[in-house]
Amino acid sequence: MPIPIPSPSDLVSLGEGNTPVLKLSKISNQLDLEIYAKLEFMNPTGSFKDRGTSMMISALRSMGVSEIVEDSSGNAGASVAAYSSKAEIKAHIFAPSSAPDTKLNQIKVYGSVLHSIDGSRDKTTEAAEAFAKEKKAIYASHNLSPFFIEGTKSFGYEIFNDFGKEIPENIIVPVGNGSLFLGIWKAITELDTQNLIGTKPSLHCIQAVNVNPIASPVPWNISQIAPTIAGGIAVGTPPRKSEVRKVLEESNGFANSVTEESIKEWQINLAKYEGIFCEPTSAAAFAGLENLVNRNRIDKAKRVLIPVTGSGLKDAFPE
Amino acid sequence: MPIPIPSPSDLVSLGEGNTPVLKLSKISNQLDLEIYAKLEFMNPTGSFKDRGTSMMISALRSMGVSEIVEDSSGNAGASVAAYSSKAEIKAHIFAPSSAPDTKLNQIKVYGSVLHSIDGSRDKTTEAAEAFAKEKKAIYASHNLSPFFIEGTKSFGYEIFNDFGKEIPENIIVPVGNGSLFLGIWKAITELDTQNLIGTKPSLHCIQAVNVNPIASPVPWNISQIAPTIAGGIAVGTPPRKSEVRKVLEESNGFANSVTEESIKEWQINLAKYEGIFCEPTSAAAFAGLENLVNRNRIDKAKRVLIPVTGSGLKDAFPE
Repeated sequence: MPIPIPSPSDLVSLGEGNTPVLKLSKISNQLDLEIYAKLEFMNPTGSFKDRGTSMMISALRSMGVSEIVEDSSGNAGASVAAYSSKAEIKAHIFAPSSAPDTKLNQIKVYGSVLHSIDGSRDKTTEAAEAFAKEKKAIYASHNLSPFFIEGTKSFGYEIFNDFGKEIPENIIVPVGNGSLFLGIWKAITELDTQNLIGTKPSLHCIQAVNVNPIASPVPWNISQIAPTIAGGIAVGTPPRKSEVRKVLEESNGFANSVTEESIKEWQINLAKYEGIFCEPTSAAAFAGLENLVNRNRIDKAKRVLIPVTGSGLKDAFPE
Repeated sequence: MPIPIPSPSDLVSLGEGNTPVLKLSKISNQLDLEIYAKLEFMNPTGSFKDRGTSMMISALRSMGVSEIVEDSSGNAGASVAAYSSKAEIKAHIFAPSSAPDTKLNQIKVYGSVLHSIDGSRDKTTEAAEAFAKEKKAIYASHNLSPFFIEGTKSFGYEIFNDFGKEIPENIIVPVGNGSLFLGIWKAITELDTQNLIGTKPSLHCIQAVNVNPIASPVPWNISQIAPTIAGGIAVGTPPRKSEVRKVLEESNGFANSVTEESIKEWQINLAKYEGIFCEPTSAAAFAGLENLVNRNRIDKAKRVLIPVTGSGLKDAFPE
């Protein structure tokens, strides 16, 4: 797999990646479809972000960077905090004060400086940018770093290892900033260029009805934003929106929005029927799958793969 | 690897095992020793218990069992709850009401019936036994099931995959009921019988000063029990105590007790220096390593491997 780090000795790893793939037999029966889950919450800090963070922090360390600023809804913040600790980089993590306590505490436990910001996820980004500018510190945004997506790309290479040439025809991803969505497509494109895979999959993008700048069926305006339990995808102004749209078009994927109610329902379904306890953001992808199936957007003869992006242990428990 | 399940189709798996091994470079420097960690908290429910549970639930399902009773300080309970959900077995989980909320909530989220019991860990066992007897239900205790240890054995086979013939000379394990400790030794013995490994490692047993029925330097009595933050090893009367003692003797291992203060300190050290956030029970093994090093019980030319048994996300956060 092509990675952009100058030397393997620069790699900062906490054992990320190589997550298991499970067939979800009961949910497959319910939706009359072959459904696989790749358990990204089994990464070292409990989310897929560790793939991107490993690559981004490795690159920063190899450049001699010793202090960084990052903003996150929680999962990326905890991930950057952990890898920075391993790499001996001082990290300032900006997160919305409304993020779950567990995610905020996790950031602090690794020794990073937590800057808790009142207001929306987008306000957090503004505060981080201002701080980095004022302190002349490196703004190591996982949403902007090209290295981050080089890291999430490993997800795509692994499904080639998991399934071989015939990877599942549909991949359904919860999209906030789209770093996993875009990383997967980059891997697919690289594999396809080398003629290693058969048909390229369709990548589908799922967002919450309350924050759907990409999936909204009508023109989206930030004033439409409303609270969602899917904190990991509560991004009103994703900087890579047009890149995500381009992949949707190229891959014949659908963008779909899901209700708060359906997110909660799927979080519980996954735990009760499949023994998988994920965060609401991850459950949103399954709610989206149900919508797509109901609207006949998915050919039932084709397979579906869903990344279970984050651990349920880091968020509020479902009631 | 020899497994006792009649057929692979009976296997109930959530993707457990194959956890990464990391070299802990900073802690190795601090203690002037080569130290490796195997990240057991990266199992599907966040602890090594998933190895044993997978095998135990597979065996129970293959026998047609549909309802079980289990008792646990929290980690095994959550693990049994998750695998029972996958296997469509109804599980009654008995846990001390003093267990961390996250562990208790995790048990419920998978759809198991939580029986929260006031009093000590041992009272929980008594309550589970009484309930099973009254209901004529299967008492599927992970502490007694031979299948459970057949599952934890996979840890030992994996370190053979990780290190080859020359596995680390010291393995340091936090011991409550000893299911991981005994499983590792069973694997080592099987590998040795087949002449697959060089020198057999020493297995060292770490307990909290406040609950040390095995590691106490003076005769232990249950009346000496005191609260410990290491809930996973707070077992006053471990049913396999004599088996653990036998392995200590056979492997030339030491039993050592650690203070509450040192457990807290190592939990924070691991997060701040190595980017690993574990529960206090896991940190106890590192506190024990420091004791053994200070007392010259470990040859500094030899390597050390420590399982990081459980996730910090499931317990109270360190202050």
